[in-house]
Amino acid sequence: MFREKIKILDCTIRDGGLVNDHNFDLQFVRAVYKALAEAGVDYMEIGYKNSKKLFSPKEFGKWKFCDDDDIKKVIEGIESNTKISVMVDVDRVDVDEVPAKKDSPVDMIRVATYVKDVDKAIFLENHFADKGYETAVNIMAISRALDNELTECLEQLEKESKAKIIYIVDSFGSLYQETTEFLIKKAKSILKTKEVGIHAHNNQQLAFSNTIEAIIHNANYVDSTIYGLGRAAGNCPTELVLGFLKNPKYDIRPILDVISKEFIPLREKLEWGYIIPYAITGILDEHPRAAMALRESDKKENYREFYESLVGEDEE
Amino acid sequence: MFREKIKILDCTIRDGGLVNDHNFDLQFVRAVYKALAEAGVDYMEIGYKNSKKLFSPKEFGKWKFCDDDDIKKVIEGIESNTKISVMVDVDRVDVDEVPAKKDSPVDMIRVATYVKDVDKAIFLENHFADKGYETAVNIMAISRALDNELTECLEQLEKESKAKIIYIVDSFGSLYQETTEFLIKKAKSILKTKEVGIHAHNNQQLAFSNTIEAIIHNANYVDSTIYGLGRAAGNCPTELVLGFLKNPKYDIRPILDVISKEFIPLREKLEWGYIIPYAITGILDEHPRAAMALRESDKKENYREFYESLVGEDEE
Repeated sequence: MFREKIKILDCTIRDGGLVNDHNFDLQFVRAVYKALAEAGVDYMEIGYKNSKKLFSPKEFGKWKFCDDDDIKKVIEGIESNTKISVMVDVDRVDVDEVPAKKDSPVDMIRVATYVKDVDKAIFLENHFADKGYETAVNIMAISRALDNELTECLEQLEKESKAKIIYIVDSFGSLYQETTEFLIKKAKSILKTKEVGIHAHNNQQLAFSNTIEAIIHNANYVDSTIYGLGRAAGNCPTELVLGFLKNPKYDIRPILDVISKEFIPLREKLEWGYIIPYAITGILDEHPRAAMALRESDKKENYREFYESLVGEDEE
Repeated sequence: MFREKIKILDCTIRDGGLVNDHNFDLQFVRAVYKALAEAGVDYMEIGYKNSKKLFSPKEFGKWKFCDDDDIKKVIEGIESNTKISVMVDVDRVDVDEVPAKKDSPVDMIRVATYVKDVDKAIFLENHFADKGYETAVNIMAISRALDNELTECLEQLEKESKAKIIYIVDSFGSLYQETTEFLIKKAKSILKTKEVGIHAHNNQQLAFSNTIEAIIHNANYVDSTIYGLGRAAGNCPTELVLGFLKNPKYDIRPILDVISKEFIPLREKLEWGYIIPYAITGILDEHPRAAMALRESDKKENYREFYESLVGEDEE
C-alpha cells in the first residue's frame, strides 16, 4: 500500500526556531533528533546557515547559524539513519564558510527563495551541489506567484539547477486543496528530472490535508514538524503524517513520547498553532507578520478589529 | 463564483453540549444565536430533544431536552433569518411530546442514527415530517459502515424517507479526503431526490478539508461549530467555512467577535480541539471515548502508553 519514494523532512527545529529566535537548548535538540531517528524519519532540518556578519550570535540562538561543531554535538552518540539538512536564504549566507560535504555532518542544503530571486537561488544551490551536498530549492510565498512567472521559474530550475527536489511552499497557509492540486500538477509537468516537495502552513487547519493532496498528485517529499511547531500557525504535524503513511519503516511512538515530554511543556512557554489572527491572514492570503505583532500587543484577542484593519486598505 | 444551494448548519451548542452536559447559560446561547443571525448562517442547532423519562433534568442542562419555551427565550427579540434545528437520537425521544411545527419555534429536526438503526430513524423522521418539520437523517460512524450495508441504508432512505437531507457523519475523525470523496459520490449517486450533507470531526485536523472535499463533490449542507467547539477534538470551524464560501450573504465578522468575547474565555474552562489522544483515536478509527477518559485521568499526557493500549489488543 505504501509508496517507498515518499520521504519526510522534519523541520521542527528550523521552522520552530522562527518562534524563539533559534534558542533551543542542546538537550531539546538532541531529544528531537533521537525521536526522529527512532521514528525512521528521513531528514531533520536543524536551522539556517546565516552569515554572522549579518546577524549577531549575541541576539540569536545557535540554530540561526548551524556551525558544524554545534551539529556534531547534537548527533554525537545517537544511532541514526536520519540525514541532516540546513536551510539558507538568498543573500544571507556566506558561501565561503560552508565546507565541502566530506568535511561536514550536513547532508542536504535547501535554498529558500521567492520566484523573483530564482537566479540567485540556482547559483547558491549549484555551488553547494558542487561541494557534494544534496540540494533542494524551496519556492516561498507560492500563493502570490503569478502563473507565467512561476512557469518560467520552474522551467529554469529544470534546465539550470542541480537540485534534486523543488518544494512548493505555502508560506501564508492560504491554499485550499484544489489550488494545491493545480500547483503540484504544474510542478510535476515541468520538473521532469526532479522530485517535487510540499511545505504547508496551518493557518486554516489545512497543512496536513494539503500535504496529503500533494502526495496524491505525486509529490514525494513532505515537510512536517512535531506537534506542528513553527512560526505563527505552525506546520503540518509529523505525528499525523506518520499516522497516514503506511511505510512500515516509520514508527509514530517515539514522536508521541517526545511530544509528551518536551512539547507539552514547551507550549506553555511558546505560542503557535490555530489562533484566529493567523486564520485571518491565511484566509486573506497575507503574511502572518501583522498577526504576530497583534499577538504581542494588548489587543491580542481583538479579532474583528484586526480583520477590518486588513480588509479596509484601499489597494487601487 | 458561489453555489447558492450551499447551506451552513452551525451546531455549536448541540455538539458543544457533549463537552459540558449541555450546561450553557442563556446569555451564552443568545450570544451565539445573535452572532449566527448577523453572520447569515442558515441554521443553528441548539441541542437534543431527549425524553425526560430517560435523562434527568437535574443531571443535564436545558439543551439536552430543548423545551420549546427555552428555545423561545433564546430567539426572543433578536432579528434573524437563521432557522432553528434540534437533533433526536433513535430510542431516546418521546415523540408524543414534540408538538406540530405550527406550534413550535423549531424549523428542522435531525435524526442521528447508525446504519443498523435506519428503520427506526426513518420511522421517527417521517413522523416529524408529517408534523410539518423539515427533516434530515445523520448517518453516524460512517467510517465503520460496511459498503453493502451502507448501500442498502442509502437506498432505503431514498425510497422510504421524507428527509430532505442525508448527512454523512465522520464521528471518529478518521476520514481522509479520498474516502470523503468516495462516500459523498456514493451518497449522491443513490440519493437522487435528496441533498447530501457532511458533519466532520477534527481529530486529525481534517474536519475543514473534508468539508471542502464534500462541497467539491456536491454536498450542499455543511455542519460547523464556532471555534470548532464540540466533543473531543471538536468540529469543522464555522469561521473557516465562512472564510472559504464566497456567498456575499455571509459575514465572518460577528463570528470573530463572539469568539473573542465568549469562546476564548470558555476555552479556559472546557477542553476541546487538537489534542494528541484524540488524534490517536482518529488515526486508529476508534470512538474518542477512551481518549476522553484518559484526559480525565492523571495519565492525561501519557500518549505513547495510550497508543499502545489501543493497538495492543488482540482482535482475532
